[in-house]
Amino acid sequence: MPPESTAVRLVAALAADELTVATAESLTGGLIGAAITAVSGASAVYRGGVITYATDLKATLGAVPDDVLVAHGPVAAETAVAMARGVRESCRADWAISATGVAGPDPQDGHAPGEVWLGFAGPDGSAEAVRIDRLGDRDAVRAAAVSEALSGLLARLTAASS
Amino acid sequence: MPPESTAVRLVAALAADELTVATAESLTGGLIGAAITAVSGASAVYRGGVITYATDLKATLGAVPDDVLVAHGPVAAETAVAMARGVRESCRADWAISATGVAGPDPQDGHAPGEVWLGFAGPDGSAEAVRIDRLGDRDAVRAAAVSEALSGLLARLTAASS
Repeated sequence: MPPESTAVRLVAALAADELTVATAESLTGGLIGAAITAVSGASAVYRGGVITYATDLKATLGAVPDDVLVAHGPVAAETAVAMARGVRESCRADWAISATGVAGPDPQDGHAPGEVWLGFAGPDGSAEAVRIDRLGDRDAVRAAAVSEALSGLLARLTAASS
Repeated sequence: MPPESTAVRLVAALAADELTVATAESLTGGLIGAAITAVSGASAVYRGGVITYATDLKATLGAVPDDVLVAHGPVAAETAVAMARGVRESCRADWAISATGVAGPDPQDGHAPGEVWLGFAGPDGSAEAVRIDRLGDRDAVRAAAVSEALSGLLARLTAASS
């Protein structure tokens, strides 16, 4: 499984630099945290996270500012960035990954199934969002989000330490 | 996959009674939330949850009272119950499931790999813990925790509505 081997490399890369990570998940419902913690030794690098599946929990548990949700909705770059920043803070992690989007089969808030935003927040205070559009069923969309989240953080770690 | 078909029945049972659920996970790292949200239509019943993998996050993000953690540690009936009660409150759900234990391969805090505590908290304010001892590798222990968590809540829903 490609996501799992990426998770192994991600855990090793974080551990090598004594860095930690937290996760804020919506459409993936816990799959990103599950992929990281499938790796033996994950406890050295994985702090924990939130699953803010219901939109109102993105504001409360996820610490996404209300004005961001009102202006952009749950499926947006700004929301993904705020989710990552929020969980990095609440879990006191060095890095954070977030995922929000539409797993399908139905559209949500005017967004088509397969539209996913990933957020990445890092130790220097920076944060950014990446959009994925993945055709396929619910499982395929969620798996793509997990895979891109893990490889996206791995790429950022590699860039930051080079 | 047995856990997935149990998840389908769980989502249907919650939806039939217009009830919601939240999850607080430690050793499963998000797998219980992932199993529930794999079901199309989960958004009607699944609120969200916390992944309190690091012990200190059980106290902060998970709202487990410090004295419970000090007296019993992270792998205990009392902690599982407090995790379920905490996430039921923070996610404003009718029901909550929690899982804490040792996935292995190494023992943790004097507990052997395979010792898992599941917590269940319900709308009437009641809460209880169930212990599982599962021989096997990390994946097997985590899969057993997910399966027992889903079927345990399903059984409680059936009992409550009969």
